[in-house]
Amino acid sequence: MKLIARDYDLDSKIMRVVLHDDDCLEIGVKEGERVRIDGVKSYVVAVNKSDTLVKRGEVLVPKSVMDKIGGKDGMEVNVVFSPSPESVKSIRKKMDGQRLTKDEISAIIEDIVEARLSLIEESAWLTALYINGMDVDEIADMTTAMVDTGDRVVFDRTPVFDFHSVGGVPGNKVTPIVVSIVAAAGLMLPKTSSRAISSACGTSDFVETFCEVEMDAAKLKRISEEVGGVLAWGGSMNLAPVDDMLIKIEYPLNINPRAQMLASIMSKKMAIGATHLLMDIPTGPGTKVKTIEEARAYVHDFMELGNRLGINVECAITYGDQPVGNAVGPGLEARECIRILEGMGHPSSVVEKACELAGIILEMGGIPRGADEARRILDSGEALKKFREIVAAQGGKPDIKSDDIAIGKHMLQVVSTKAGYVHHIKNKDIVQIARAAGAPGDKGAGLLILKKKGQRVEKGDVLMEIYADVESKCQRAKDMAINLVPLEIEGMLIEKVSKKIL
Amino acid sequence: MKLIARDYDLDSKIMRVVLHDDDCLEIGVKEGERVRIDGVKSYVVAVNKSDTLVKRGEVLVPKSVMDKIGGKDGMEVNVVFSPSPESVKSIRKKMDGQRLTKDEISAIIEDIVEARLSLIEESAWLTALYINGMDVDEIADMTTAMVDTGDRVVFDRTPVFDFHSVGGVPGNKVTPIVVSIVAAAGLMLPKTSSRAISSACGTSDFVETFCEVEMDAAKLKRISEEVGGVLAWGGSMNLAPVDDMLIKIEYPLNINPRAQMLASIMSKKMAIGATHLLMDIPTGPGTKVKTIEEARAYVHDFMELGNRLGINVECAITYGDQPVGNAVGPGLEARECIRILEGMGHPSSVVEKACELAGIILEMGGIPRGADEARRILDSGEALKKFREIVAAQGGKPDIKSDDIAIGKHMLQVVSTKAGYVHHIKNKDIVQIARAAGAPGDKGAGLLILKKKGQRVEKGDVLMEIYADVESKCQRAKDMAINLVPLEIEGMLIEKVSKKIL
Repeated sequence: MKLIARDYDLDSKIMRVVLHDDDCLEIGVKEGERVRIDGVKSYVVAVNKSDTLVKRGEVLVPKSVMDKIGGKDGMEVNVVFSPSPESVKSIRKKMDGQRLTKDEISAIIEDIVEARLSLIEESAWLTALYINGMDVDEIADMTTAMVDTGDRVVFDRTPVFDFHSVGGVPGNKVTPIVVSIVAAAGLMLPKTSSRAISSACGTSDFVETFCEVEMDAAKLKRISEEVGGVLAWGGSMNLAPVDDMLIKIEYPLNINPRAQMLASIMSKKMAIGATHLLMDIPTGPGTKVKTIEEARAYVHDFMELGNRLGINVECAITYGDQPVGNAVGPGLEARECIRILEGMGHPSSVVEKACELAGIILEMGGIPRGADEARRILDSGEALKKFREIVAAQGGKPDIKSDDIAIGKHMLQVVSTKAGYVHHIKNKDIVQIARAAGAPGDKGAGLLILKKKGQRVEKGDVLMEIYADVESKCQRAKDMAINLVPLEIEGMLIEKVSKKIL
Repeated sequence: MKLIARDYDLDSKIMRVVLHDDDCLEIGVKEGERVRIDGVKSYVVAVNKSDTLVKRGEVLVPKSVMDKIGGKDGMEVNVVFSPSPESVKSIRKKMDGQRLTKDEISAIIEDIVEARLSLIEESAWLTALYINGMDVDEIADMTTAMVDTGDRVVFDRTPVFDFHSVGGVPGNKVTPIVVSIVAAAGLMLPKTSSRAISSACGTSDFVETFCEVEMDAAKLKRISEEVGGVLAWGGSMNLAPVDDMLIKIEYPLNINPRAQMLASIMSKKMAIGATHLLMDIPTGPGTKVKTIEEARAYVHDFMELGNRLGINVECAITYGDQPVGNAVGPGLEARECIRILEGMGHPSSVVEKACELAGIILEMGGIPRGADEARRILDSGEALKKFREIVAAQGGKPDIKSDDIAIGKHMLQVVSTKAGYVHHIKNKDIVQIARAAGAPGDKGAGLLILKKKGQRVEKGDVLMEIYADVESKCQRAKDMAINLVPLEIEGMLIEKVSKKIL
């Protein structure tokens, strides 16, 4: 039927049009079913019904859909019922435990990107994927289908090195150090990172405290080819964008189906044109990957996928049982990271992890005794020099220093009331406390963990410092620390908290 | 934070509030997560974000939620983040293939009714139920949890007889006949029926062509106890209302998880206080239940559930391979049904099915040779007399006749171009054609199938008549009949269609 299109925005990432109940009846479309809208161009999109938001004779069209139909507010469009896409049948097939073909997988991914599937259908898809899984060939097909939904970066310089951490361990600020070392050694590593979803601080969350991380593919290419390294926010580029749409479903369900996770990682790496990829798989009770056996299964899958996708993959199973280094939170992690580049050998867990990972990449690039060479590059100041070049290229201070980084002006200390040894640090609690303090939104918020696993603690020793930009959040985080007891000292509870304003 | 509540309606059955993006950030809530709204009373509800629909400082509240918080447009309310309910963990548990406890199942059902779960979570729940299923004890627990979400009818008269058809076969208009026979025999059968979801005509769709079907529980009780039978629309009563919420998810996914289907049926029967229940399980390639083995599995489940829930259950596996009788569509089915009550012995498939089902119920009520007695009650006119009493009690004409029923004024005949035998009738195609003609919304729309399976057809014989209230829909249905070929005659295609206006 003929309707007048009106501008509309509910959530810019959710593409749905809103139709009046009576018009829905006439068109013969139900909530969550689809219509085809014929404007200058035609587009199929899911429907929400309303009898108050929209007048009869009008259709509310979000900007993303308005662009697709080449329409504008006030234009007359033709709206007709559109049957379920074939991909709904394929979702059902996966629910029934069957293998999907390359074409079926492509159609599902394309329909998700084009908003032809409803939230209900997308949720069923990920739930079926979580329960019934995919074999490696299906995952490879899904990876390429995901790559096809966005842009690909084509470098004039090869090989293209990349690395990725499966994540789940707080305080993992090694990325700028690894990139700087590898680039200083003459190899090219165009690193894209993410922002925190459920963690306290993603790499991009702390890198943006000292330079810009948002850039398009052209800028990423230029900086990488000129400087050898880049520290970009992947979300600012259109690399396998379907991934971000699915996170909206995975997050509330608190699931990350293995097939989806593998395809998601590999698609971003394919899109950026990686020829050599190092996978870091932090392993331990408090991370995504709990056991060595599980880690080895991931190693197998990543290697197999690499074979099928033409990427040379190596894997490192790393220790993920407690935070990496001492700092958790944007400003605090940035400061700790730059201090290490400046030559402070502490915390050694960060130095060692960075040099080990960089070392493997150097060896993939034909440089022998990689870890030793990485350490030499770090100690000699070559890494710091390269780091500053990258920061300058991304609009930061060319002589950036660790002391330039602002941290929260409110601080509370958590002290121990008893002597003993730290026998366990709960990653999940650390994340919750840092988030309560304001991380990752408040850049100065976070924690410094002053005692790590196995360390001796005397009565009165400070276990951690909580930093915040907002005083009430500092207090809230402190209350949470008392409640959660993230550092367990021989079964003793943490009881006393003292406060000072810096 | 303090916000002003504003009236809002997107879809009255979907309870979500809309908050401004910036307020969401301040509250710390993401799309699909939950907030607690403190008005006169407090209520937890899922959130949609927008930066255009709603102003900062305001929250759009649908009427259903406004009632829950005892608020009104313009009232200041307090809105705070509310963590995921425990039931999300239980959904995850079912995704992981585990059994759920009675309390876990109750919490899920309650959170669905109270709109504390998002569409994403509800879809994951039904998908997990579809894939991983439930054992009989879990289904019994889910049944009672579903009953607890609504009202229960308590009759002063016992026993309470009931019957239910698993459905999937078009033209199944036996319900008023069965109810009339059973009530005429002195037993009480308070029958609730449904409207069509994906079929061409539910029982309530055709019953409402001759009397009112919407009534509350009190009226249903009064009519049943006085007259012995009732023909109510179940949707007008608050019996296990959670079921209707889940249909919104099942329908687009085209799934009906076995556990959900069993619990759904049994909960409606428990809520109406049934002590004796006959389950009709139409079986055949074109129905929900394809094979005798599958039908027997359902028989087993229904009997086991009856044991656990204290309902005396018997089952009848019936022939569901082609439509029951000749008519499909509200007016046409009503006319055929009443003609049989008036004494027309045709179509015999309807007469036989009605008398067989009524007979089983009579025997459950202690009346021997039930099928013979049912036939006697029908032939003697006692059933018609009782039927008219029920119709009168429901506001219809006390002397209702089959000729009173209006049927579509437009008619197209589909004729055979070749002689042969009807060897197959496709139920699904019959439904699609009837819907194309306007059923169930247009009361006069539908089909008369004049040749049934096994019948001899001569060249030029009319295979079916298509009726419609709207001429263009009649034509559309005819085109569809030509395209789909719902009656297969020795592999011959149906080609010629002639038209006349009645």
